[in-house]
Amino acid sequence: MHDTAPIAEAAAWLAGLSEALSAGDVPRALSLFAEDCYWRDLVAFTWNVKTLEGKPQIAAMLEATLARTGPAAWQVTRAARRPEGVEAWFSFTTMTGSGLGIFRLEGGKCRTILTTLQSLRGFEEPLGATRPFGVVHGANRGRETWSERREREAASLGASEDPYCLIIGGGQGGIMLGARLKQLGVPTIVIERNAKAGDSWRRRYRSLVLHDPVWYDHLPYLPFPPNWPVFTPKDKMGDWLEMYVKVMEIAYWGGTECVGARFDAAAKRWTVELIRDGRPVTLRPAQLVFATGAYGPPKVIDFPGAQQFRGEMLHSSQYSAGAKYAGKRCVVIGAASSGHDVALDLWEAGADVTMVQRSPTTVVRAATLLELAFDLYSEAAVESGIDVDTADLLGAAPPFALQPVAQRALYDRIRVRDAAFYEKLTATGFLLDFGPDETGLMMKAYRTGSGYYIDVGASQLIIDGEIKVKSGVEVERLTPDGIRLADGTELPADVVIQSTGFQSMHEVVARIVSREVADRIGTCWGLGSGTRHDPGPWHGELRNMYKPTVQEALWFQGGNLALSRFFSKFLALQIKARMEGIGTTVYGAPR
Amino acid sequence: MHDTAPIAEAAAWLAGLSEALSAGDVPRALSLFAEDCYWRDLVAFTWNVKTLEGKPQIAAMLEATLARTGPAAWQVTRAARRPEGVEAWFSFTTMTGSGLGIFRLEGGKCRTILTTLQSLRGFEEPLGATRPFGVVHGANRGRETWSERREREAASLGASEDPYCLIIGGGQGGIMLGARLKQLGVPTIVIERNAKAGDSWRRRYRSLVLHDPVWYDHLPYLPFPPNWPVFTPKDKMGDWLEMYVKVMEIAYWGGTECVGARFDAAAKRWTVELIRDGRPVTLRPAQLVFATGAYGPPKVIDFPGAQQFRGEMLHSSQYSAGAKYAGKRCVVIGAASSGHDVALDLWEAGADVTMVQRSPTTVVRAATLLELAFDLYSEAAVESGIDVDTADLLGAAPPFALQPVAQRALYDRIRVRDAAFYEKLTATGFLLDFGPDETGLMMKAYRTGSGYYIDVGASQLIIDGEIKVKSGVEVERLTPDGIRLADGTELPADVVIQSTGFQSMHEVVARIVSREVADRIGTCWGLGSGTRHDPGPWHGELRNMYKPTVQEALWFQGGNLALSRFFSKFLALQIKARMEGIGTTVYGAPR
Repeated sequence: MHDTAPIAEAAAWLAGLSEALSAGDVPRALSLFAEDCYWRDLVAFTWNVKTLEGKPQIAAMLEATLARTGPAAWQVTRAARRPEGVEAWFSFTTMTGSGLGIFRLEGGKCRTILTTLQSLRGFEEPLGATRPFGVVHGANRGRETWSERREREAASLGASEDPYCLIIGGGQGGIMLGARLKQLGVPTIVIERNAKAGDSWRRRYRSLVLHDPVWYDHLPYLPFPPNWPVFTPKDKMGDWLEMYVKVMEIAYWGGTECVGARFDAAAKRWTVELIRDGRPVTLRPAQLVFATGAYGPPKVIDFPGAQQFRGEMLHSSQYSAGAKYAGKRCVVIGAASSGHDVALDLWEAGADVTMVQRSPTTVVRAATLLELAFDLYSEAAVESGIDVDTADLLGAAPPFALQPVAQRALYDRIRVRDAAFYEKLTATGFLLDFGPDETGLMMKAYRTGSGYYIDVGASQLIIDGEIKVKSGVEVERLTPDGIRLADGTELPADVVIQSTGFQSMHEVVARIVSREVADRIGTCWGLGSGTRHDPGPWHGELRNMYKPTVQEALWFQGGNLALSRFFSKFLALQIKARMEGIGTTVYGAPR
Repeated sequence: MHDTAPIAEAAAWLAGLSEALSAGDVPRALSLFAEDCYWRDLVAFTWNVKTLEGKPQIAAMLEATLARTGPAAWQVTRAARRPEGVEAWFSFTTMTGSGLGIFRLEGGKCRTILTTLQSLRGFEEPLGATRPFGVVHGANRGRETWSERREREAASLGASEDPYCLIIGGGQGGIMLGARLKQLGVPTIVIERNAKAGDSWRRRYRSLVLHDPVWYDHLPYLPFPPNWPVFTPKDKMGDWLEMYVKVMEIAYWGGTECVGARFDAAAKRWTVELIRDGRPVTLRPAQLVFATGAYGPPKVIDFPGAQQFRGEMLHSSQYSAGAKYAGKRCVVIGAASSGHDVALDLWEAGADVTMVQRSPTTVVRAATLLELAFDLYSEAAVESGIDVDTADLLGAAPPFALQPVAQRALYDRIRVRDAAFYEKLTATGFLLDFGPDETGLMMKAYRTGSGYYIDVGASQLIIDGEIKVKSGVEVERLTPDGIRLADGTELPADVVIQSTGFQSMHEVVARIVSREVADRIGTCWGLGSGTRHDPGPWHGELRNMYKPTVQEALWFQGGNLALSRFFSKFLALQIKARMEGIGTTVYGAPR
């Protein structure tokens, strides 16, 4: 039997909210919320990616946005009882479109609510019943076939016709956003330095396999088939992206680099200088998206003595295959994901490997994460009706501020489950942590995108002494024959690989637009948690990602496959609304 | 509220059947059937594609197969009340695998039952929860990456290792069967004369768009995305097939022709001679599948006087674009699908077009079919939970013998709906029919694969006199300047296009294997309906398609996308079972 109480309770609560908001009565609306409450809005009320924390912030947001948003038609679509209270899904409309959301009640009051814009009225995506017909039946001497139309568009877009949007970077983030914008009818070009879509995966080191499972990695519109492997090998991923670009009919310029861009605030157009297949091209898009990789350019450390070093030094992003290092003494500086991956790949190739670990690393075994952390993204979830879009919205419902509690609980379980493993790992001298507040890998990923490793094999090599580790020590300088550490140790080395991470994406803006614009925008990514490398103030959302920045018409898109998939939708809606001249007054715009 | 009566009624009936069959009591089982009853079995009981019609045939099949099939675990999974009675879905097992089926009760007795084998025990497809892992976590100096494995397999299969199965023809039919066999772990090579997968679509005439809607056209495992057009343009279809081959990791040899094949009955192996990229290759597969196109080689008529004709003569299969015929007098011989399509394409290119219609054509407008005939394959069906696999099984439930009744009823509606259209069309002298028994297009498709046209525009041109038609008359001979018809009319012509259809697929066998083997096998396709070009005796299933033929280890795969999709599963299971040495005694084998 169905438990009908939750849906009745949810519907009553939502009716109360609806009445209060219709009456413009913000205090009455707030009376429906718990004291410690959160409203996360993705583009529906704020035209921003914004979490309002506590009643005063929610009140201010509603006072500012209510009249111009005009939310209506609130409707609970399903509800369930959870340990903490009732969780309900709902739909609603605004003056410009329709939305979906999730709220959670505790003791009859709302603890958290998520509102998301899903479509723009009059500009709904042609999908399912409204998909294109594909042919005009009847006789037509001017008939243009699909191929002819594709050829004409390829010839005109970027030549006689400027794209409305230019996306710099044709990896997963740029491709997914390109697909969404194509669906919304926004003329868009995606440019990519590599020759072909997928090359950014293909060019990485040979043993790379995605660390997240397939259920978490789907692209929009075309999920991976049921025979796709749990963990996607990099070249298979490359092929899928290349296919996807073709199937989605994305205008994709491989072999193209952006060398400069400036914004004309009067004309509301960018002037973007490209080199396409060696020839200069100038485009004037209205919107410019940086999708150059979540973490920006490689962070290369200029060690003292580097000039004298007689071996080879490279950054992990330049590392592709270990074969040529067989039998050589290799030192990997850095002990996060790429440091471990490179060390494992080198060991498999027969190199002598030492890892220099300068600060502690959060390590979780892949099998453990698969078992404990991907309940929303799993075959079991699919079988219980939770498809990837449902999982994404459920995952977006809790605000960042509340995630540490859940993550700490998860890591309490993980530490117990893998106690023997962690004991052996730390016995080697390896510095293990779970973040400054014991919240583990995911919070590190959001805060700094660094300092963690999903163990797919390197940790056992460390335990077995096959990969040597020097921990808790900085590099003092390079010598002609290797590395001298701050504790005086000398590490002889034929090869030094800096697995030292990446800079913020805004450094790409500095190179392409200007240092001044980049500095005004500030760094990308991170929550402002105040933890190491993620300075405050607290933002409650990822800095500068997927939302308006201080520079008009400049956007950032990035992150892993899941974040790129989910947020590309909201970024695409923001861009489409601007193209159509829909009012998009931003609440809480960056200054 | 649910109507629980149907499921109870269905469960009671199935329990009765289960008990009777477990007891080996065939008369008791038959007492549960109506007098006019049908049992359609796809590989589950008969290792054949077989419909048993009436109690004596069903009794004989059960007597022969029951002991070796060992059906058990019969379970109703859902049931619904239909106008005629209860329709129920069920699952069951056999000694070798598990199956699904559908039965329909009328007055408490079974009118029709469908049993299908869905998987082989111990050889279930790795899908969903059992999909491959994609990586072996841990350190491994002998690690073989996905790309390395793919390269090794590509280098060895067909060189040091013979494929178990060779599929001749890499169009949709060969590709879908190739994907199924790959999933089942059957080493298979698909060979295709064209350079690339999809070329067989790309090379066709420029304006071609699929005549069936997208919901009917899905390939296995990877359905078209929701933004895919209703009617797929040919080049987009070509690209999809090319992508599909890559994603499904099918061993696909483009640029390869089969020039000969002979079966060694003692060694149970074929010796197949290929020309691959100009070089001879010999393979020795155990199973040989002809997937060379549903209807075999072009049927080219050797008209008297052809040598004297000063214009150009070609078969519709050679026709690609009308541009070069602008302003020329073109005569199209034949008035079925390709005749109409070519005539429309020529008219659009600015040619002067006359169609010679030698016998009546069934014409149905595409929009009408979409509205009335695709209820199982539509967005509405998808929204009500009927996915393509569900629709396929529902569509397979009624035996061919009962289809004329439903089809006649459909065409009664169609004639009323489009009465004005048909009146105008026949007023031009165009000979319209709905088959010898008024059953329309689908039955013509099953019986002869010819004599019909889904109107996408040419009929209006005929009505308007833009395409001229000479009807009910044979071609007497070609003259130097055109065509003389049997009624004495002279049609001047610069170009003659024979849209005269295709020969049976067994003619390909005659060319590749031998005339003697081809003649022993007999023609492919058709039901034995006794109507024109579909001689009896009655088969009740498509002749020689998807099932054992009189030639051991020789199979035919083909048909439109929907038939290729559905039957490729059963053909793949038959081949896999033989590879694994599972008992596959065929009931009702051809002699």
